[in-house]
Amino acid sequence: MKNNFTVTIIGSGNVATHLYKALISGKQPIDEKTPEERANVTIVNSRTLENLPGHSDIILISVKDDAIAEVAEKVKGKASIIAHTSGSVSMEVLGNCSEHFGVFYPLQTFSKDKELEYSDIPFFIEGDSQATVNALRHLANEISTEVFEADSNKRKRLHIAAVFACNFSNHLVAIADELLKEEDMDYRVLIPLLKETVKKLESMSPIDAQTGPAVRQDKTVIAAHEEMLNNEPHRKAIYTLLSSSIQEMAKKRNK
Amino acid sequence: MKNNFTVTIIGSGNVATHLYKALISGKQPIDEKTPEERANVTIVNSRTLENLPGHSDIILISVKDDAIAEVAEKVKGKASIIAHTSGSVSMEVLGNCSEHFGVFYPLQTFSKDKELEYSDIPFFIEGDSQATVNALRHLANEISTEVFEADSNKRKRLHIAAVFACNFSNHLVAIADELLKEEDMDYRVLIPLLKETVKKLESMSPIDAQTGPAVRQDKTVIAAHEEMLNNEPHRKAIYTLLSSSIQEMAKKRNK
Repeated sequence: MKNNFTVTIIGSGNVATHLYKALISGKQPIDEKTPEERANVTIVNSRTLENLPGHSDIILISVKDDAIAEVAEKVKGKASIIAHTSGSVSMEVLGNCSEHFGVFYPLQTFSKDKELEYSDIPFFIEGDSQATVNALRHLANEISTEVFEADSNKRKRLHIAAVFACNFSNHLVAIADELLKEEDMDYRVLIPLLKETVKKLESMSPIDAQTGPAVRQDKTVIAAHEEMLNNEPHRKAIYTLLSSSIQEMAKKRNK
Repeated sequence: MKNNFTVTIIGSGNVATHLYKALISGKQPIDEKTPEERANVTIVNSRTLENLPGHSDIILISVKDDAIAEVAEKVKGKASIIAHTSGSVSMEVLGNCSEHFGVFYPLQTFSKDKELEYSDIPFFIEGDSQATVNALRHLANEISTEVFEADSNKRKRLHIAAVFACNFSNHLVAIADELLKEEDMDYRVLIPLLKETVKKLESMSPIDAQTGPAVRQDKTVIAAHEEMLNNEPHRKAIYTLLSSSIQEMAKKRNK
């Protein structure tokens, strides 16, 4: 890709904001590129598209899934490559708006005011052609060392896997927080445990790392926990479903 | 507590093994105690109780919940304080075996061959008297800086909260792993995301940290995910139950 290439991010949400920050700061701690070799990045709110530069090498559309097609229509012909950043939307939604189009999907949870380390975020790239893939890969490499190709099927799979592993896990901590608050305690006592739960996964697979009453088939503890949740049908349903799912998985494996 | 006090751990599982390692290594990185001021620790398998020292200042029974009472009966009178290390078993099960008895509960996930940092493991102590609490607290302080008192209700609450936040979350990663394997990918791509999910919780509560299609009320993505899981009723049930639970919690909060 030529020096001084221009990137315009469209959006104002968590992903757009963080991609902008990541691209202007570059890979940390070491980035040996000169400023001329780095992308020129602009960020534009999707409601003020009149501020869009006349031409960009790459436009990244980073708006809600439902709004991607509409924004793409409005920026038709304004870039050599138009890509979106969604885990769930197929690449083809951009096919009418640009000769070259693709996907630039960062697998990470972004919260607006939360600083984060960008250089190990996995990026998953898809493109209409090898040249598009190369250009988007080049851009992702400005941020991260972990850049992969993934077609729409793989990307959708990654997205749902991330929902299970991250969104749902966070919700389980939220339930734990409620349970602890009722006894005047705080979810923060769980943080060393949560950290170790993740750290274990660096050296052992999640099925090997599984601990707790369900995988131990500890019926006494499971019954006591279900009893404790008797007046809370919603939490009890989650407890029972996940405990039986752990046992099913262990059974399947031991066959 | 006097110098050179003696601690005997009974058990051969993950918790017993790690407590032994933690007590012989002491608080890291700095532990200014001389060897004489530290506990003398022995570990004995519950099947070879004939090897038990004649008298210990503290016996920690770290065996399966169902076996605690039986082991306690066998070591009656062999220690000034007998304590167990379980999250779920009440302290009273030890009441007949020793004048002084208590609970010494480390809130952590232990896997046998996995090294871990002991000094930030929260310990929750309960005792028949203030003197017992003080002695067990003193012992926990040999390992960790995070030592709290918690009665049986609080401890049981901590245990079930840990099941939600840790055991169940790990299982969700195991499901994500299966989903990814079916598309020739590996759960390890999720690790930066998992780390950030936990890291966020140091500065924001889990309900504030919640992201994903459910909390965004993104019906299109939720429907697409449920469609993707149509042939897998078990995973689909988990997806649907946890998504609705996230939405319920958000609704309750916005009231």
